[in-house]
Amino acid sequence: MATVRLVTDDEACDEVRAVFADIRATRGTDFINNFWRALAVDPKRLKSTWEEVKDVMVAPGELDPLTRELIYIAVSVANSCSYCVHSHTASARAKGMTEGQYGELLGIVGLAAKTNHIVTALQVPVDPEFDLARG
Amino acid sequence: MATVRLVTDDEACDEVRAVFADIRATRGTDFINNFWRALAVDPKRLKSTWEEVKDVMVAPGELDPLTRELIYIAVSVANSCSYCVHSHTASARAKGMTEGQYGELLGIVGLAAKTNHIVTALQVPVDPEFDLARG
Amino acid sequence: MATVRLVTDDEACDEVRAVFADIRATRGTDFINNFWRALAVDPKRLKSTWEEVKDVMVAPGELDPLTRELIYIAVSVANSCSYCVHSHTASARAKGMTEGQYGELLGIVGLAAKTNHIVTALQVPVDPEFDLARG
Amino acid sequence: MATVRLVTDDEACDEVRAVFADIRATRGTDFINNFWRALAVDPKRLKSTWEEVKDVMVAPGELDPLTRELIYIAVSVANSCSYCVHSHTASARAKGMTEGQYGELLGIVGLAAKTNHIVTALQVPVDPEFDLARG
Amino acid sequence: MATVRLVTDDEACDEVRAVFADIRATRGTDFINNFWRALAVDPKRLKSTWEEVKDVMVAPGELDPLTRELIYIAVSVANSCSYCVHSHTASARAKGMTEGQYGELLGIVGLAAKTNHIVTALQVPVDPEFDLARG
Amino acid sequence: MATVRLVTDDEACDEVRAVFADIRATRGTDFINNFWRALAVDPKRLKSTWEEVKDVMVAPGELDPLTRELIYIAVSVANSCSYCVHSHTASARAKGMTEGQYGELLGIVGLAAKTNHIVTALQVPVDPEFDLARG
Repeated sequence: MATVRLVTDDEACDEVRAVFADIRATRGTDFINNFWRALAVDPKRLKSTWEEVKDVMVAPGELDPLTRELIYIAVSVANSCSYCVHSHTASARAKGMTEGQYGELLGIVGLAAKTNHIVTALQVPVDPEFDLARG
Repeated sequence: MATVRLVTDDEACDEVRAVFADIRATRGTDFINNFWRALAVDPKRLKSTWEEVKDVMVAPGELDPLTRELIYIAVSVANSCSYCVHSHTASARAKGMTEGQYGELLGIVGLAAKTNHIVTALQVPVDPEFDLARG
Repeated sequence: MATVRLVTDDEACDEVRAVFADIRATRGTDFINNFWRALAVDPKRLKSTWEEVKDVMVAPGELDPLTRELIYIAVSVANSCSYCVHSHTASARAKGMTEGQYGELLGIVGLAAKTNHIVTALQVPVDPEFDLARG
Repeated sequence: MATVRLVTDDEACDEVRAVFADIRATRGTDFINNFWRALAVDPKRLKSTWEEVKDVMVAPGELDPLTRELIYIAVSVANSCSYCVHSHTASARAKGMTEGQYGELLGIVGLAAKTNHIVTALQVPVDPEFDLARG
Repeated sequence: MATVRLVTDDEACDEVRAVFADIRATRGTDFINNFWRALAVDPKRLKSTWEEVKDVMVAPGELDPLTRELIYIAVSVANSCSYCVHSHTASARAKGMTEGQYGELLGIVGLAAKTNHIVTALQVPVDPEFDLARG
Repeated sequence: MATVRLVTDDEACDEVRAVFADIRATRGTDFINNFWRALAVDPKRLKSTWEEVKDVMVAPGELDPLTRELIYIAVSVANSCSYCVHSHTASARAKGMTEGQYGELLGIVGLAAKTNHIVTALQVPVDPEFDLARG
């Protein structure tokens, strides 16, 4: 149960329709997932968020699309966003993530969380060797 | 200032010395960063943690070493571990991360955090399409 | 499914009954939401928590009741508390939150999360200009 | 110590100069805080982030500028972003936050964090009364 | 709905079967909870994680088994892991946690979260008296 | 650098003086750590927070004082509160925490964080066996 109504295609205003159309064209599928239907209650934010997703996750760049999804999953796990974990794990699989890669992702996320917590417990001081200005 | 003493090479017991030697051999550098010197107050945990780091971050696998570091940074940022952000950003640079890749990482981490929070605010229900069992 | 039984009106001991009565009187409704029914397994903590909620969220102050709810939602989102997001979004609506205000709240929470993460990734040093002692 | 160089005015390229000029004009001060100088290593992200800040925090809307800062502080606290807490507390003071309002903010943030954690510990089920669809 | 299939006893490969058998023997129950059935998609990680759980939570040590569970619950609450809260609250009860102890745990977790957030809001500087080196 | 002035003994108003005196008497030391000096800018909140600390951390109960500190540290680590980690690690040592116990605490906190993240990544469904109502 969401805190807002999910906007169906029939209820969508012109601005929302245009974004939904662009999502469909960009992804090559008719499926619009619930995040966009919820965000559609605020058409301006829907549009700016989708533009940012296209820019960060879809546009050509130095990181390949699957690597971007793995990073997205990692942040979503650490922020405990259940929906985001589901949607980006599905995206990663659609982009070719193998079970081996997924297992390694789990290993890294788990290890990072463990050492993050141990470092914070120990309050380890930053080594001066990490200072860029020394390079 | 740490919550424990940092163990110097001179103070290290045999078990710690052996781990420090393996870190140096594995990384091809004499530098032992403060995380290991702090963890060395508990030699058994030092050893098991280093073994896990070697297994997850160093051993051959399907994800390349730089991608692993990017995922590690992402988790460390979301868990707000200052030391870990410094040490793994330095590692990523040592493994060839370009400024362009770093900029894209910032973009993905920032966008993921933003949508994680908006999704949690909206309490978006998980789409049944994400269910593996439907595949 | 909770980790404790939810206490019904019939099961409530005298101390719990008194708190439930005060919640109803203060809010002008017969409805007692599940948080209080769960907390009622520990009557002393139920009472002290309700007193704190009355003091912080209900008593007259310099921040108006709706602003207080918006801040509460923001913290609850960042702490990923699904129940709290639902209950305080409902409270904010009951206190007059408009859809426009809600959209702006989403925008601020999303932007703050994004910049929080980017700042942590960049480890930006605090400007001396922010020091109160300079004022 | 940041993970990137902070860009000085002299080092700024044209794109960065234009953003810095707009920050100065918008805020009516010559001061550019370190966040923007760090982000300036990625001029495109600097520009898009500043545009989002202007849109969300500066443009006219239904929430007044001080309320927006209080919400920003709340999220930054919960995400444990030290720099962001400093910069937005300074902004809130510059926008007229009184000590009384600040004390109330602390009270709400502290209470929300406390109840967020207790609710998560108790795994309280969401009341059907919070469902919008019942309204 | 999980992001992976849960492995049943019938589907388990030999490596998974061996871990399941050890879980059953160690705990003295036939019940294998879903965490292990999900992790079983990656037999090597299943094994190493179970070994770590046995080492940290089961092996003799200076902290008694119930205290270990209370600490585990506290971390799981702060990291907002719903499943972990359920499973470790059940474990703590199985190890004899009384309702009085549980109430005190809620009180500590709630108070710690509240002061954590207030301290972060106030950016309180660490007292030199906390420095071990002064001792 | 704090976001507020730290209140010295000389600057303290009567209400603050009374709380400081009670902290000193309760703890049997003249030392007042910075958290209380920062919170003293809001005397009412200082008093109520100290009362809660006394009630939760000092008053007789079923959990011994050291166990309470270990739980407090665990939450503070997961919430990434550097000051709180320092102050409560010092408190735990003052209450007799051994290096062996501290090492076990690190092990539990690290393991919990790791499994919390892996469980969230896998979105493991809660076992019906954990339901109290089945008991």
